[in-house]
Amino acid sequence: MSSSEVLDRLAAVIESRKPASGGDPQRSYVARLLHKGPDAFLKKIGEEACETVMAAKDCDHGGDRSRLVGEVADLWFHSMIALAHYGLGPADVVAELARREGLGGLQEKAMRAIGESDSSAA
Amino acid sequence: MSSSEVLDRLAAVIESRKPASGGDPQRSYVARLLHKGPDAFLKKIGEEACETVMAAKDCDHGGDRSRLVGEVADLWFHSMIALAHYGLGPADVVAELARREGLGGLQEKAMRAIGESDSSAA
Amino acid sequence: MSSSEVLDRLAAVIESRKPASGGDPQRSYVARLLHKGPDAFLKKIGEEACETVMAAKDCDHGGDRSRLVGEVADLWFHSMIALAHYGLGPADVVAELARREGLGGLQEKAMRAIGESDSSAA
Amino acid sequence: MSSSEVLDRLAAVIESRKPASGGDPQRSYVARLLHKGPDAFLKKIGEEACETVMAAKDCDHGGDRSRLVGEVADLWFHSMIALAHYGLGPADVVAELARREGLGGLQEKAMRAIGESDSSAA
Repeated sequence: MSSSEVLDRLAAVIESRKPASGGDPQRSYVARLLHKGPDAFLKKIGEEACETVMAAKDCDHGGDRSRLVGEVADLWFHSMIALAHYGLGPADVVAELARREGLGGLQEKAMRAIGESDSSAA
Repeated sequence: MSSSEVLDRLAAVIESRKPASGGDPQRSYVARLLHKGPDAFLKKIGEEACETVMAAKDCDHGGDRSRLVGEVADLWFHSMIALAHYGLGPADVVAELARREGLGGLQEKAMRAIGESDSSAA
Repeated sequence: MSSSEVLDRLAAVIESRKPASGGDPQRSYVARLLHKGPDAFLKKIGEEACETVMAAKDCDHGGDRSRLVGEVADLWFHSMIALAHYGLGPADVVAELARREGLGGLQEKAMRAIGESDSSAA
Repeated sequence: MSSSEVLDRLAAVIESRKPASGGDPQRSYVARLLHKGPDAFLKKIGEEACETVMAAKDCDHGGDRSRLVGEVADLWFHSMIALAHYGLGPADVVAELARREGLGGLQEKAMRAIGESDSSAA
């Protein structure tokens, strides 16, 4: 299964957990967060960002890199719950990243041509 | 271009900005963050998580959803810079999400079978 | 100068930097943040919380404790800017902490009396 | 009770909840966080910073200001738990704020004298 299939499939699971899709707060963690409303899942984004930072700092001192992967997965996952609530999904984020990467590439090419020292997007 | 191609390509760009790959802090924002070290890009993760939360709260009051997409893109992008620094990439995160989604599906199927009310992973 | 004098004096300085008090964004960092509006100073709270966490993690590995003090000072300072914007100040926060500490003490006394194992507020 | 008395008294309560002071994780929330170690209370700092930001955003749309006070109190309280773990306390933070406020005042006075447009510390 490719990355895009995984993200799309996960987005579909989250979509099915929305109150409007019949998601059951008693049976599903995602349905519970969506049922509680924005503050519940937005708080998780702040929390998982903090845990990502702590796991990364631990990696600097011999900590387990798989914990960092797990925290970033939590962070992306809860971002996707927020996106779903607002009618958005990972495809929108990836499209935005693609748009920037394109711009960055062009900017950087232009910069090389004219020899500027300013930063490119990437 | 599929999601996985975009993420992989972006990961390759970030990889090329590492000091060891000859990334130039004068010309590239990513090279600059990687050159400064963990605290520089980890701080950005905290910052972008906070901006994601603020953009989402604004969406609740008629704010622009495209700003939320932009903030989540920033958040994922800076997560990918951190992952790169520790020799990891988006493929590791997506694999972890796939692993969980699989487990979640199995757990939930089992729960339905036995009629428990405990939460599944998703 | 006591803690309360320091906090009150700092709150008075912040108050004088409000646009309505004639604070000049060109001359003062606080006036600039207040002039830009909530997102500018709220973002700093997220950022300083993240830097506090990183400085603390560094203390676990021989890092400088004075950096932790500096980050917490930044965090409290930017919290005070936010409070000021909403017509509040450190005295409100301290009153809330006093209220809780009192409740915690009572709860804990009650718990000791009845020998429960539940947690007290503090 | 003055602000400094409240903060000092709260710091003393936290101190008494340390494992080394015989704090009981079964009976006290603070003892439990200190017993679990840095990641437990540092994570709360990230979480409370995020909740402070959300409560402030809600104030922009008619939300309850007392919730903001409560979140900042939570943020300062958990900062104090972290400080205690590293042998520090609110007096250190207040001393740092006093030091800066003094510097800021001097800088600003100097700036007024020479008519510069650069920012002062406050």
